[in-house]
Amino acid sequence: MHIEPGALLRTIQSPDDLKKIPQDKLYQVCDELRQYIIDVVSVHGGHFAASLGVVELTVALHYVYNTPYDQLVWDVGHQAYGHKILTGRQQFFETNRKYGGISGFPKRSESEYDTFGVGHSSTSISAALGMAMAAKYKGEKDRKSVAVIGDGAMTAGMAFEALNHAGVADSDVLIILNDNCMSIDPNVGALKEYLTDITTSHAYNKFRDDVWKLLGKLPVGKNFTREMASKLEAGIKGMVSRSSNMFESLNLRYFGPIDGHNITKLTDTLADLRNIPGPKLLHVLTVKGKGYALAEKDQTKWHAPGLFDKITGEIYKKKYDLPQPPKYQDVFGHTIIELAEQNSKIFGITPAMPSGSSLKFMMEKMPDRAFDVGICEQHAVTLSAGMATQGMKVFCNIYSSFMQRAFDQAVHDVAIQKLPVVFCLDRAGLVGEDGPTHHGAYDIPYFRCIPNMIISAPMNEAELRNLMYTAQLDSTELPIVIRYPRGEGVLSDWRKPFETVTIGKGRKLRDGKDIAILSFGHPGNFAAAAIRDLRTDNITPAHYDMRFAKPLDEELLHEALAKYDKIITVEDGSVVGGFGSAVLEFMQQHGYKNDVRILGIPDRIVEHGTLKELHRECGYDAQGIADAVREMMKERVGMTIVG
Amino acid sequence: MHIEPGALLRTIQSPDDLKKIPQDKLYQVCDELRQYIIDVVSVHGGHFAASLGVVELTVALHYVYNTPYDQLVWDVGHQAYGHKILTGRQQFFETNRKYGGISGFPKRSESEYDTFGVGHSSTSISAALGMAMAAKYKGEKDRKSVAVIGDGAMTAGMAFEALNHAGVADSDVLIILNDNCMSIDPNVGALKEYLTDITTSHAYNKFRDDVWKLLGKLPVGKNFTREMASKLEAGIKGMVSRSSNMFESLNLRYFGPIDGHNITKLTDTLADLRNIPGPKLLHVLTVKGKGYALAEKDQTKWHAPGLFDKITGEIYKKKYDLPQPPKYQDVFGHTIIELAEQNSKIFGITPAMPSGSSLKFMMEKMPDRAFDVGICEQHAVTLSAGMATQGMKVFCNIYSSFMQRAFDQAVHDVAIQKLPVVFCLDRAGLVGEDGPTHHGAYDIPYFRCIPNMIISAPMNEAELRNLMYTAQLDSTELPIVIRYPRGEGVLSDWRKPFETVTIGKGRKLRDGKDIAILSFGHPGNFAAAAIRDLRTDNITPAHYDMRFAKPLDEELLHEALAKYDKIITVEDGSVVGGFGSAVLEFMQQHGYKNDVRILGIPDRIVEHGTLKELHRECGYDAQGIADAVREMMKERVGMTIVG
Repeated sequence: MHIEPGALLRTIQSPDDLKKIPQDKLYQVCDELRQYIIDVVSVHGGHFAASLGVVELTVALHYVYNTPYDQLVWDVGHQAYGHKILTGRQQFFETNRKYGGISGFPKRSESEYDTFGVGHSSTSISAALGMAMAAKYKGEKDRKSVAVIGDGAMTAGMAFEALNHAGVADSDVLIILNDNCMSIDPNVGALKEYLTDITTSHAYNKFRDDVWKLLGKLPVGKNFTREMASKLEAGIKGMVSRSSNMFESLNLRYFGPIDGHNITKLTDTLADLRNIPGPKLLHVLTVKGKGYALAEKDQTKWHAPGLFDKITGEIYKKKYDLPQPPKYQDVFGHTIIELAEQNSKIFGITPAMPSGSSLKFMMEKMPDRAFDVGICEQHAVTLSAGMATQGMKVFCNIYSSFMQRAFDQAVHDVAIQKLPVVFCLDRAGLVGEDGPTHHGAYDIPYFRCIPNMIISAPMNEAELRNLMYTAQLDSTELPIVIRYPRGEGVLSDWRKPFETVTIGKGRKLRDGKDIAILSFGHPGNFAAAAIRDLRTDNITPAHYDMRFAKPLDEELLHEALAKYDKIITVEDGSVVGGFGSAVLEFMQQHGYKNDVRILGIPDRIVEHGTLKELHRECGYDAQGIADAVREMMKERVGMTIVG
Repeated sequence: MHIEPGALLRTIQSPDDLKKIPQDKLYQVCDELRQYIIDVVSVHGGHFAASLGVVELTVALHYVYNTPYDQLVWDVGHQAYGHKILTGRQQFFETNRKYGGISGFPKRSESEYDTFGVGHSSTSISAALGMAMAAKYKGEKDRKSVAVIGDGAMTAGMAFEALNHAGVADSDVLIILNDNCMSIDPNVGALKEYLTDITTSHAYNKFRDDVWKLLGKLPVGKNFTREMASKLEAGIKGMVSRSSNMFESLNLRYFGPIDGHNITKLTDTLADLRNIPGPKLLHVLTVKGKGYALAEKDQTKWHAPGLFDKITGEIYKKKYDLPQPPKYQDVFGHTIIELAEQNSKIFGITPAMPSGSSLKFMMEKMPDRAFDVGICEQHAVTLSAGMATQGMKVFCNIYSSFMQRAFDQAVHDVAIQKLPVVFCLDRAGLVGEDGPTHHGAYDIPYFRCIPNMIISAPMNEAELRNLMYTAQLDSTELPIVIRYPRGEGVLSDWRKPFETVTIGKGRKLRDGKDIAILSFGHPGNFAAAAIRDLRTDNITPAHYDMRFAKPLDEELLHEALAKYDKIITVEDGSVVGGFGSAVLEFMQQHGYKNDVRILGIPDRIVEHGTLKELHRECGYDAQGIADAVREMMKERVGMTIVG
């Protein structure tokens, strides 16, 4: 079923079309744009509340600025649906986030209006400043750069680094602070309180003006000398001009806060700002989910709700006859509470993903032991390290791709000091519709090169529980990574008693003939399915669930390499430097010469799609593994090119 | 020659001894401590100016606080020499930074007073906060945590992330901002200007008090109504209490600025602050190099000057008869100017290392095209990416170990978007005396797993020039890493005309028999020396300078693997997932079964020492390579364990 945009929106295939519409009709564009986003996302899925919150801002920016010559950078970019619809992608919008369709985030290869690819937070100011500095250098005086960044993204250190530079760089960059008090979950931290404070202290700017006016009326008399008056005036001037506002402290001109849903006010303000040179910040107040009542009320739930009935607001859930396996996330969320009830040393930390990681369960139940620190992966890791020095067992839960932000802290603050921090690496491996920026493809190689680091991956929910149990034991004296994928596991009956896992020990799942599959983590289930499928070919591979990429189970490897000429390794991670390479390094050290195939994420950018589609494409789903086994079995035994 | 500390200092083997000294004698402790640091560093080398700047602060902290129960975290830690001397390491201080001696940075395994290992900037607030939160949870009410952080380190985003959390965490943490306007080079950015502003606007706090007092004297008359007065008062209160100071905006109580060289004032202030609960910041003004006149005058030069005559201030230089090879850093610094003079698209960016990287030459000559962005690796990389979208060729120069801070940005903002940023990775490989936190051990694995990334390493200065030349050509359309080591190269006659290097092409340096050495980067020179040495054994290895770890030179590899049964790879990087593993992966893909030895940095933390000592220890110096060749030649040809 094709979804029709409204009549006015249909006429807008580019910002040029938008600019032809009179300002007093823009509210209608906003209404139709909002409605179209609701219509499409309810049927096709995707991020929801964020784009609704910036409908007016999106229209105003493309109305006032000369895009794409003027350069607009959306931070994170899940709020850019309106931007995509207004910039030539209306007719493709129903393919949003689908395999082969347009990306759910701005992407340079997709449109010249997408000036910078995004996905992770807080990159926009740096990128826009780079563009502005280049424009200045090239003498493109009328070319402007704009970064739109949320108050959640503003908590990441990277944004501060960029503000600190922008304030002295003397470039035409406008930073729009889209303040809706939210990340995916409610925003946290002192900055958030400060922004609320600016906003709620009614008419901060107006008041400042009042003070100035009153100063002009200061009377002078017996008790109040001219000297006193002049001292007072100088003092107030000093305070007002120097540090009345945190952003002004960083040498940015501060404007606002203004209502981000008043399209007239927004277009007027932006038109003024476009002509003011130098670095400046506009503070815009918006409501995440604006215009869809349920989303306004529960913004976390409606961040990316899945498919829903747009009239009733019912979010569709698949119906099953039998109990279904839970998400790994929920297993983590429930298990950490069970463990923390037994072990008073356990803490839980998440950088802005309490809902996504399910740490929220513990945050609700044990608020003094589980924390959301904001979009601050670096701080999250070193804070965990600080706690670990005090004997605490900190479960630091970070998505694999976001962990890239804290790589140095993992090396420098955790591994070098041998502090037993537990890294629960959520969304490790391909993540599906969020695509390249969110795939957790690199953590095995980037952790494997770090000395002292234990790297594990559970094949199912029970294994996840046992690894978590093992991680918090005092006998686990080194930092440990537990990587697990996004979404459902494979066991419906998962809440089994805890068992200790020996660090560096895998499991032999079955013996076989000629060929062995060494799997790491959840793709072990694909391998098991492949093995069932291969029965009809009379091929019976052995199967080892290796559990650890570091340290390797040397005993099991010696067994497998001695017994089976052909080896296939499978992992949900990059084939460059990953688990498969660890097996090659082991073989090199011990002189093994087996034939090896390494299955995993290939050395190229894998785009978005469903997990099933992407596993298929990368060739490590059950079919891919079975195909690889069949191919290897066809090859002449012992053939080598050496010679 | 043993260097004697002063009489009073000799009596201080721990903070307990220090606490026995009357407050009015502390100035003498400071004098002797300062003198001892000058005496030892002038003879034995090390960081210099930073420790001189915090002599009084160090004495005051250990005098007032109950260390090690109270927990003191030094940011970066090169200023902690005084701390080490006062906490039981006086008799070892002459071994500072020497092989087997004490570390130049605080290190947990060295002393209970070193509560947190440091080396990279801006980790201290997170770590101290983690300690404070754990203490609070454990009910250790009288236990305090203190972070000492410089104004340079405060520019890194990580510090901001921690401040943002500290402001709401309700823990007893004191942050001491050691404001000396310096990183290694002068500090930059808007925050620095802001701090100067606070400091130079005479008596900011006193003035605030004055305003409060004057408000009490406001007269009311005809032209100035009670209503007006009350409005004015409310307004000023609002401004003063809410946002008169950036740190107060983040909900930290702000104290200072105070003179960091007044020991009495410092001890009094700290004694007061120790009893004030909650998160707070003390702004202390110090002079880097304090007490050594030359160092106060040229703080960058005296950051870590090497050996010098403490009386005349002459910094010793080795004397040579012949022209000597320059540092790789200087080759970079001069070459980027040569290139920029020919190619107007070239920019240079450094995060706070203009002197260390030698980008300062270009910053002086082309100030509109070369920038220091502060200790902001994340911002540096994404800023470079932003510029690259505008067709600029940005040479982003970052030390290998600091690049760990911007790993996510390299993946997310550069590689996924295929932007041709040039990463000049300085101090790649072992760095010597700075030790584990500064060794550039991991960049080959952590870059190699990123799609689209070119990874190169020059074997000498001429190669560095040619790689830089190649990197800026329009034909180089992907991001490229050029990794090179700290210190001198091997060619005295290095300034040769530029030659284009074909991406992914190595060089065959010599043919051989039975065995081939594949080297990556500067250890190729060790390999060449080993080969000369092996002549006496009648062993003649072939030698290939591979130049690229990604993409590999497949043609050269096919040749080497087909011709030589035995292969040795050599790199100045981790043997886990590095260049050697890349060769193993190539062999696996093509069915080669050669015997391989991988030489490089082993999978453990390598401590500090001279480069020569460390290369020896790790076994990839000329002797190590020659030994490895001899061992391999002794092994039975074709022996494998398979079977």
